[in-house]
Amino acid sequence: MNSIINSLSVFGLGLIGGSFALAIKNKFPEIKVYGVDQNLEHARKALELNIIDEIKSADDNEVLQSDLIILAIPVSAIHDILPQLLSDVSEKTVIIDAGSTKGSICQNISKHPNREQFVAAHPIAGTEYSGPEAAFPKLFEDKKNIICEFDLSSEKAQKYANWFFETVGMNNIFMDAEDHDKHLAYVSHLSHISSFMLGLTVLNIEKDEENILNLAGSGFASTVRLAKSSPDMWAPIFQQNKSHLSKALDEYILQLQVFKENLEEGNSEELKAIMLKANQIRKVLS
Amino acid sequence: MNSIINSLSVFGLGLIGGSFALAIKNKFPEIKVYGVDQNLEHARKALELNIIDEIKSADDNEVLQSDLIILAIPVSAIHDILPQLLSDVSEKTVIIDAGSTKGSICQNISKHPNREQFVAAHPIAGTEYSGPEAAFPKLFEDKKNIICEFDLSSEKAQKYANWFFETVGMNNIFMDAEDHDKHLAYVSHLSHISSFMLGLTVLNIEKDEENILNLAGSGFASTVRLAKSSPDMWAPIFQQNKSHLSKALDEYILQLQVFKENLEEGNSEELKAIMLKANQIRKVLS
Repeated sequence: MNSIINSLSVFGLGLIGGSFALAIKNKFPEIKVYGVDQNLEHARKALELNIIDEIKSADDNEVLQSDLIILAIPVSAIHDILPQLLSDVSEKTVIIDAGSTKGSICQNISKHPNREQFVAAHPIAGTEYSGPEAAFPKLFEDKKNIICEFDLSSEKAQKYANWFFETVGMNNIFMDAEDHDKHLAYVSHLSHISSFMLGLTVLNIEKDEENILNLAGSGFASTVRLAKSSPDMWAPIFQQNKSHLSKALDEYILQLQVFKENLEEGNSEELKAIMLKANQIRKVLS
Repeated sequence: MNSIINSLSVFGLGLIGGSFALAIKNKFPEIKVYGVDQNLEHARKALELNIIDEIKSADDNEVLQSDLIILAIPVSAIHDILPQLLSDVSEKTVIIDAGSTKGSICQNISKHPNREQFVAAHPIAGTEYSGPEAAFPKLFEDKKNIICEFDLSSEKAQKYANWFFETVGMNNIFMDAEDHDKHLAYVSHLSHISSFMLGLTVLNIEKDEENILNLAGSGFASTVRLAKSSPDMWAPIFQQNKSHLSKALDEYILQLQVFKENLEEGNSEELKAIMLKANQIRKVLS
């Protein structure tokens, strides 16, 4: 596979943006990679780690003239800067976002005259770590990438997106933006909140952290892993997906309340039946 | 280290009992290992896999004369059979349980004339899998084992327990039985329920399981891992720890409700502050 671009600008040099830059530079060292980050420490670190070739500001001419711009910044920032960025970039530039919500971002630029230069994507990849030091080039390998409203992107933008996600090793799935947000509320956003709140509940009771360290097994570590995730990244995701997520939380809380009632009433058979249903997750996730 | 026992009877040939048998046989092949399991299929499988040397019934004379008996059966069964077993075993026999609750098991035999032949233990080890096929000898290596009310066990029973847990590679921690149950409600039992209910909530909404498979990342898989656990093992644990667990569930549900209210009111800064607190789990679990 050949490179079809000469220049790439990455907005946001954390885990996702940094890993994209590394994956592209690994395969195509000839591509010029510009890095944009409000956090100057992150930008300098990314340069030091050879994740990017140059630090640039968002309104730099070479950034606005890039063949491809990747937005790997919090979804609130994507939402806010995308309309102006679509107006400012050159005609040849394609912009792809990597935000974990898609509905409000797509809605916000649906009538933009340059809408077709944009591809709405959500690479399903990540770890609980953040920042440029957490980036690694194989993060996306064999992972799924969701693309929404692909028919609203130009042929050229589609071609760039296909090339980009293939280069980093991802498999594309195509969905409606609202459907995406609804499903992700359940399979991703809810599990982050369940983990954050589990961590908080345990920390509140176990003032002596030694107890957690001594008594927690690998099961607790696994369940609470996502509680290490970045608040700055996740608060905007939760806000942008508020209506679906609020419903998902209602359903989760209801299940917990039903379980608690059965526990208090000593309905062991009902508890077992509930857990047996939950066991079906085995069929999906081995 | 030499073997200090000649015979071992393991009640319950699942993940925990099977792994104990394998760990002991690995180090001391000369020890005769008897297996007791109500599930005859499990017993036969354990024999076939060389996890045990012979299948026995619980009232078999050689079992009751064993140097050491390990109870790796559901906590409800430990609770129910332990008083009679303590009456039936030979004077030289030491019994160690591996139940995930300790309060009611200890309470139930506190006045038994042979109380000192018993050691109340909780090895903090396991996976989400169950049955003899899930057993492996290194399950316990470098893991913590909690022993409760050790001063109520005879010197000989203490010596056997120290030898046994050292042989399988565990480090002992000593606790009060009620304290154990309270802490475990938070760092283990609650995380199992949060995971079971997460799995259930997602399965309820995602009737098309393909969606879960396609859209779930490693984060969801990690958070929902414990939802694969055995209902037969966990229902009795939850029941025996009902009062602590019910309180833990109340606190967890409250945290979720507070989070949801802040979400619905658009208090992003408060959401971030809550998540930042939960992030402190990093200090404990790297």
